[in-house]
Amino acid sequence: MDLSLDSFYELHNLNLEATVATVTQTPNVKKPWGGVFREATDPRVEKFTESISFDQRLAIYDIQGSQAHTQMLATIGILTGEERDQITTGLGEIGAEIASGQFDFRQEFEDVHMNIEQALIARIGDVGRKLHTGRSRNDQVSTDLRLWIRDEIDRIIALIKDLQRAFVGRGKQDQGVILPGYTHLQRAQPVLAIHYWLAYCEKLQRDQGRLLDCRRRVNQLPLGTAALAGTTIAVDRQMVADLLGFDGLLANSLDSSGARDFVIEFASCLALIAEHLSGLAEEWILWSTSEFDFLKLPQAFCTGSSIMPQKINPDVLELVRGKTGRVVGNLTSLLVLVKGLPLAYNRDLQEDKSPVFDSADTVAACLELLAPLVADAELNRAVIANRLEDGYLDATTLMEYLISQGVPQRTAHEIIGQLVASALDLGVPLRQLPIEHFTAAHPTLSGSAHEILGVQAAVDAFRSYGSTNPAEVEKQWNQWQKKLSED
Amino acid sequence: MDLSLDSFYELHNLNLEATVATVTQTPNVKKPWGGVFREATDPRVEKFTESISFDQRLAIYDIQGSQAHTQMLATIGILTGEERDQITTGLGEIGAEIASGQFDFRQEFEDVHMNIEQALIARIGDVGRKLHTGRSRNDQVSTDLRLWIRDEIDRIIALIKDLQRAFVGRGKQDQGVILPGYTHLQRAQPVLAIHYWLAYCEKLQRDQGRLLDCRRRVNQLPLGTAALAGTTIAVDRQMVADLLGFDGLLANSLDSSGARDFVIEFASCLALIAEHLSGLAEEWILWSTSEFDFLKLPQAFCTGSSIMPQKINPDVLELVRGKTGRVVGNLTSLLVLVKGLPLAYNRDLQEDKSPVFDSADTVAACLELLAPLVADAELNRAVIANRLEDGYLDATTLMEYLISQGVPQRTAHEIIGQLVASALDLGVPLRQLPIEHFTAAHPTLSGSAHEILGVQAAVDAFRSYGSTNPAEVEKQWNQWQKKLSED
Amino acid sequence: MDLSLDSFYELHNLNLEATVATVTQTPNVKKPWGGVFREATDPRVEKFTESISFDQRLAIYDIQGSQAHTQMLATIGILTGEERDQITTGLGEIGAEIASGQFDFRQEFEDVHMNIEQALIARIGDVGRKLHTGRSRNDQVSTDLRLWIRDEIDRIIALIKDLQRAFVGRGKQDQGVILPGYTHLQRAQPVLAIHYWLAYCEKLQRDQGRLLDCRRRVNQLPLGTAALAGTTIAVDRQMVADLLGFDGLLANSLDSSGARDFVIEFASCLALIAEHLSGLAEEWILWSTSEFDFLKLPQAFCTGSSIMPQKINPDVLELVRGKTGRVVGNLTSLLVLVKGLPLAYNRDLQEDKSPVFDSADTVAACLELLAPLVADAELNRAVIANRLEDGYLDATTLMEYLISQGVPQRTAHEIIGQLVASALDLGVPLRQLPIEHFTAAHPTLSGSAHEILGVQAAVDAFRSYGSTNPAEVEKQWNQWQKKLSED
Amino acid sequence: MDLSLDSFYELHNLNLEATVATVTQTPNVKKPWGGVFREATDPRVEKFTESISFDQRLAIYDIQGSQAHTQMLATIGILTGEERDQITTGLGEIGAEIASGQFDFRQEFEDVHMNIEQALIARIGDVGRKLHTGRSRNDQVSTDLRLWIRDEIDRIIALIKDLQRAFVGRGKQDQGVILPGYTHLQRAQPVLAIHYWLAYCEKLQRDQGRLLDCRRRVNQLPLGTAALAGTTIAVDRQMVADLLGFDGLLANSLDSSGARDFVIEFASCLALIAEHLSGLAEEWILWSTSEFDFLKLPQAFCTGSSIMPQKINPDVLELVRGKTGRVVGNLTSLLVLVKGLPLAYNRDLQEDKSPVFDSADTVAACLELLAPLVADAELNRAVIANRLEDGYLDATTLMEYLISQGVPQRTAHEIIGQLVASALDLGVPLRQLPIEHFTAAHPTLSGSAHEILGVQAAVDAFRSYGSTNPAEVEKQWNQWQKKLSED
Repeated sequence: MDLSLDSFYELHNLNLEATVATVTQTPNVKKPWGGVFREATDPRVEKFTESISFDQRLAIYDIQGSQAHTQMLATIGILTGEERDQITTGLGEIGAEIASGQFDFRQEFEDVHMNIEQALIARIGDVGRKLHTGRSRNDQVSTDLRLWIRDEIDRIIALIKDLQRAFVGRGKQDQGVILPGYTHLQRAQPVLAIHYWLAYCEKLQRDQGRLLDCRRRVNQLPLGTAALAGTTIAVDRQMVADLLGFDGLLANSLDSSGARDFVIEFASCLALIAEHLSGLAEEWILWSTSEFDFLKLPQAFCTGSSIMPQKINPDVLELVRGKTGRVVGNLTSLLVLVKGLPLAYNRDLQEDKSPVFDSADTVAACLELLAPLVADAELNRAVIANRLEDGYLDATTLMEYLISQGVPQRTAHEIIGQLVASALDLGVPLRQLPIEHFTAAHPTLSGSAHEILGVQAAVDAFRSYGSTNPAEVEKQWNQWQKKLSED
Repeated sequence: MDLSLDSFYELHNLNLEATVATVTQTPNVKKPWGGVFREATDPRVEKFTESISFDQRLAIYDIQGSQAHTQMLATIGILTGEERDQITTGLGEIGAEIASGQFDFRQEFEDVHMNIEQALIARIGDVGRKLHTGRSRNDQVSTDLRLWIRDEIDRIIALIKDLQRAFVGRGKQDQGVILPGYTHLQRAQPVLAIHYWLAYCEKLQRDQGRLLDCRRRVNQLPLGTAALAGTTIAVDRQMVADLLGFDGLLANSLDSSGARDFVIEFASCLALIAEHLSGLAEEWILWSTSEFDFLKLPQAFCTGSSIMPQKINPDVLELVRGKTGRVVGNLTSLLVLVKGLPLAYNRDLQEDKSPVFDSADTVAACLELLAPLVADAELNRAVIANRLEDGYLDATTLMEYLISQGVPQRTAHEIIGQLVASALDLGVPLRQLPIEHFTAAHPTLSGSAHEILGVQAAVDAFRSYGSTNPAEVEKQWNQWQKKLSED
Repeated sequence: MDLSLDSFYELHNLNLEATVATVTQTPNVKKPWGGVFREATDPRVEKFTESISFDQRLAIYDIQGSQAHTQMLATIGILTGEERDQITTGLGEIGAEIASGQFDFRQEFEDVHMNIEQALIARIGDVGRKLHTGRSRNDQVSTDLRLWIRDEIDRIIALIKDLQRAFVGRGKQDQGVILPGYTHLQRAQPVLAIHYWLAYCEKLQRDQGRLLDCRRRVNQLPLGTAALAGTTIAVDRQMVADLLGFDGLLANSLDSSGARDFVIEFASCLALIAEHLSGLAEEWILWSTSEFDFLKLPQAFCTGSSIMPQKINPDVLELVRGKTGRVVGNLTSLLVLVKGLPLAYNRDLQEDKSPVFDSADTVAACLELLAPLVADAELNRAVIANRLEDGYLDATTLMEYLISQGVPQRTAHEIIGQLVASALDLGVPLRQLPIEHFTAAHPTLSGSAHEILGVQAAVDAFRSYGSTNPAEVEKQWNQWQKKLSED
Repeated sequence: MDLSLDSFYELHNLNLEATVATVTQTPNVKKPWGGVFREATDPRVEKFTESISFDQRLAIYDIQGSQAHTQMLATIGILTGEERDQITTGLGEIGAEIASGQFDFRQEFEDVHMNIEQALIARIGDVGRKLHTGRSRNDQVSTDLRLWIRDEIDRIIALIKDLQRAFVGRGKQDQGVILPGYTHLQRAQPVLAIHYWLAYCEKLQRDQGRLLDCRRRVNQLPLGTAALAGTTIAVDRQMVADLLGFDGLLANSLDSSGARDFVIEFASCLALIAEHLSGLAEEWILWSTSEFDFLKLPQAFCTGSSIMPQKINPDVLELVRGKTGRVVGNLTSLLVLVKGLPLAYNRDLQEDKSPVFDSADTVAACLELLAPLVADAELNRAVIANRLEDGYLDATTLMEYLISQGVPQRTAHEIIGQLVASALDLGVPLRQLPIEHFTAAHPTLSGSAHEILGVQAAVDAFRSYGSTNPAEVEKQWNQWQKKLSED
């Protein structure tokens, strides 16, 4: 078997780096589907309906799919062994040409499928006319797109892991650092820096899980179901699926002809990743302000102002946040697109590619940039420590101490709330509130309050699984290190 | 163990039928969190920030969660056995009151959690003040919402199966009916009616798969992670998870405090179902027109016009199609909502409930209505048959016959295309085109064309797995019957 | 003429305060459009297709429109004077009943139009059957919705002005306060507090302009175009327009029957307001953090935590920010809804009301809450002043001084950038950088730099129209005061 | 004054035809804003943050704006006359180079502004360093984008008029043709073809109105407000506004620095146009089916199938419908983008350009293709006429006749509804229903029913303004012809 997937991936890698090739136009060329037509296509229509300017990105998958199809056609006797070899070789050469940027994509052939088929016919003659047996562009494009998404899922999962590694990798340098934790952006309780980093790892892990679930639904072969009803050619779909590494066969041709839920599911997974990254970006933009001053971003990841000489701006993070817009917008595009479409292929579906290409590229680019940025940023430990006793981060600990002494939670909450109000009036942390306040508040506080208070004590006091208790966090950090080193 | 989940589900069922209870307002009530405050909440703020008017829907889950929490608090020694029983019983009585529509929800207590807690304290006194130990509303609402979504997923999967059964159930009455298949809404190839019905079953099956994947991520316990950092109370989270039927524990408190990807994933799954239903609705609206006239909808599922006496309109289908808008809009709302939020709880997240409630209700209502509509609609077999030879549904079969005779596909396509053009000029189906056209087109067609042509012959000619070949379709139909009877 | 619009507005105001009335159901009631039907509507269909649970909100506009229609029908001779009076009075009484919450809305009559018509017939007998002459629910609901939107636009414009007044009203107390201005959330240049407030006034003014433009397109009468093609009754549409205060008549019945661009345009205007408010909310949430500490929100506009006793959270602002989600989601719903609908009415359009009602209510509620919050918040002048020299807010001023001395801008930018780098190394503001640095940087800086530097000097140095120069800002502030007092 | 706007527009036209120029990269080039930086920008960051690959589209507006700025700087004495001429000429030459596709855009200069400035300095030396005086990229890009949108609005309005002309131009050939009008896609009442065409003209006219309203808000000058606070240079903003044809000046620098509501408003206008076109596309796709068969699309505007030889598909219309997705998605992107951004410029805003460029291009392309398609399509008059008596299009006319005889509308509706039910049972149009049914239904129908019935009679019977009455329609058609010939 000479499908040589490896060499395709090599080609594919080349292709990923290539800029989009220019598309040329020669109007009034006879169309491969033109038999029934009495009139030539209007050149404006060619321009409006073409997809080759963007679906050329699928070229290598199209060739891979066509080679598997060819192999199968030979096995079932539609092609001779010689024909099979001619087509396979021809397609391979076209693939190489495309990968090297030499291929002449032509608008009048509309899309990547017809461009390659026409090039094949030009190259090997009449035999090339046999390639499209038992299939249609409808199942062909669905196959191509599934192969592409499958690869993208793998690529994005690898990038997710890189970002997780960047977070986990900060563990050593940030060990012991306590940060304020916030709810409502108001200081709430103290949290270990590593606990912050692992929170993002957890979110990214769920994102990965969604991608893997999506992959199972993507990785089902539509090829061989032809236009919408199947084919009278006795194609061996299972053989094609095996050659291309699909997990199974789509079972209903009417369904598979126009199904795009696999595209939308992938775009939804990407939107959730973008949302998670937007939260990280927001948080780190805040932490990089002169007011928070928790974080020093690497200057190599900042840019300046054309007018204000002092500016060092967190542009990468702002763009990551802003790009959420396009990823959500792409998902909306797809959801509007398929609304109210009857079964089987409608040309509207051609519009599925730009949004999903853009979402994958955007999320991949954000992940790629964030990994080194996360790795290289530095916590301003002194600044953080200086203001750590602000904001009554230990108030809840004191309340829970009261609870442990038998005071009902709601009562304890009220008592500590009033103590904080007094401390606010005096402008001091709880620990500096005169002891008589504590004594007056509740007898049990007279002796013990000061031992319990303070941010370090508060952190150490946590007990629950999943809490920021140092031992708990260390355990989880070790698990993450192990997990990521195994992958 | 007396958690009596069954009785809760009973209550819950009652609750689902109940209309939303009215919320009353008594301003200037002291807040349970008011210790630190020097000023009372503005009544306009109470109205603006309340969630009780919609999150009362979570009441039964809130009680269920609180009962499990109570049981655990007793086990770890925070509550005595007597206290546990008092709280458990009190909560049960409150649940019954809510389920019977007698409970007085009050705006000044903001949300379902505080309404129930305050009612508990009013009912059992100081002991009720202990309930909120080791937890916060942040983990509580996440728990409630996960329990609700888990139930909704189960409910919607059951409704999906009902709709699948309605499609599969049509098999007997529609056996042998051939319909035109369309691409681009132009007649394309003939397709068995049952093949149509199974296409929708396939789509719905993927929708079900997505819901099940989502369910695994939803069914992780956040309770016990408290506000954002965990708690100093040595809570036993695993015990609570076991009591409530969760599959696992969320491992990072900072993450779980504000995570809403589980809500958005569920809303995405619902959006895809809505999209699938919108396609079905569109198709059947078309088929019900005077022009297509394939389908007679049950009059009980149509409504009329206030002005035009003759109208019998497919309103249910139109509304199903239109409701896609709100389901997609709800997803957008959620994606806008969480954009750019830093870690842990922000009050913005209160806005997550209305959209997800509405999406679940909408999709459930559409599925519920479509099942009987699909079951009761009738195909107009005579009308369909009369026009079945229109549109050259057999052209591709003839082309594939040529291919089987060794003509390259692209050449065969051109030949048949020109034959259709001639038939179009004469205004006849291919089968009525004079034989000399076939002979001129290709020698092999001179004798055989007429045997191959015709819609019934075309259907019978299909061979590929997943095609509309009658034997293939019957096999799949049987599998679906088996599958759905087993569930 | 006894249309008594004023009394309707009175009723309407009552109605706005009323909670949504409950809808009751009596299945198997004969439908007003049921003549052609052989089968009763399925009760599940009644529940699924009803709109009375939400379009009851249009009741008063429906009655107003029907009274104008009645007056016109009498003028063209379809109704006698007596019939006109019976109907007008009957409708008035029904309106009063609705406004007082006594009206029994019934699900089996589907919508507000049929509920009122049936109540009229029940009340005045056969004469009531004449009301629906020359119109359809299609033009009726469009009329109702236009009247409602017209009122909502006026209401929201009034609320916008209130918020503008709150900003402008802060002028006296905040006079002279200088705040850091930010780009990229990094300190950029100094800005007067009032300049900040007027920035929001400008944005809101454009929002108002969009609403007024929208109002002109909304305020066109569709009534009288009947179902989709007009009517054979010689209705006087201009008379109805005059009675109802419409600016003109929609000129094409096919267009007006299903046109919803007026709804979507309104929803778009609301989305932009929500976006503007989300920016304000974000900014003030930041300013209320312990880290920025620029702003003290009134405690009456904050709420606390169920677990953390010290928390005073900016919930109103967070909810304003979060509610952007639903307003954008509603717009998306509408845009999905109308996609791909052919001309004239389709039942999908019933789904237009919930989103637009929700968007208007949401934006109105946010504006209502923000006005007092903006008025009552206090700037922490001392805290702001203490840190005002952080962040090199005067660097650009110094650069522009160099430019005024003939140094090209790009060169001056480089020089000052390097001075800031030196100051950063030393951890001092520019003004505290040793003089030799300035001398070395550029001869002209040796003497003058220290006079130019400092935030107050920087503010005073601005010259351009629209800048934060104190005299400029005062002039604009005066203009705003005048403008808002005139409205 | 030598701004030579005309020559710029000439260049601009060239530019519109040019493909996007390739962007080259030379890493580690010193940045124009690099003075304060100690570290070079990471090349991955350059690639991630660059906008030159897409904002090069604004080049000609950027040059135009810079030339006006230069002129002003000379007038206020910042530049000498000679300097002004050097800069103006240099910019003009760069513009010519860009327009001819010879300009070397470089990624390391990030955006169009810096690329042009750096090219100017390279070309004319130190004088070029003076250009950026008194401005920032923040106000510069806002100016460029406003100039671009202003032009796009004018372009799209011209295209709207072309499409309106195509509709109105059909009037002669389609005179007298009656089509079924639909509601709920069920045959409703008869409508003149020209009435259909003018319905679309009305929708497009409102779209035009929205664009013109938007244009007023777009056409306000931000330039001269610099980064966010204004400038200490005494710039003459009014002079720049006059030179560039702006209607006014934005009055608050903090507002104008980051305001993007003008972009979103434009994108909203475009979304409504796309929605209107999606409805037209849907309608004409339906009319082109074998089942409706009302319309013959020009074959030059259709394409075929790769597998099915007979297919002639309405691809242009399907793509127009599908492209609604991207235009709505772009609007969503923008609304997500600006959510929660504080005042003044944030780098997120760079993401505003791709969506708005794409929406404008998409809508323009759709309008461009639809005009010839609408002009050249042909109504199948015979097919339409043959089936015109199907669907009881005259039922409402008969009902209104009864009303004119004094029968209350609701009663008349019931009577005619039952007549239609009888006709449906017999499978005949109303006119062929035996006379005894009419006599039994209502005495007044015994003689007259048959005169009133029939589709032609029904059309002629319409009376109301805006109806499909032939005289009414002709009057409006004439007005449209006049209106469009005047523009």
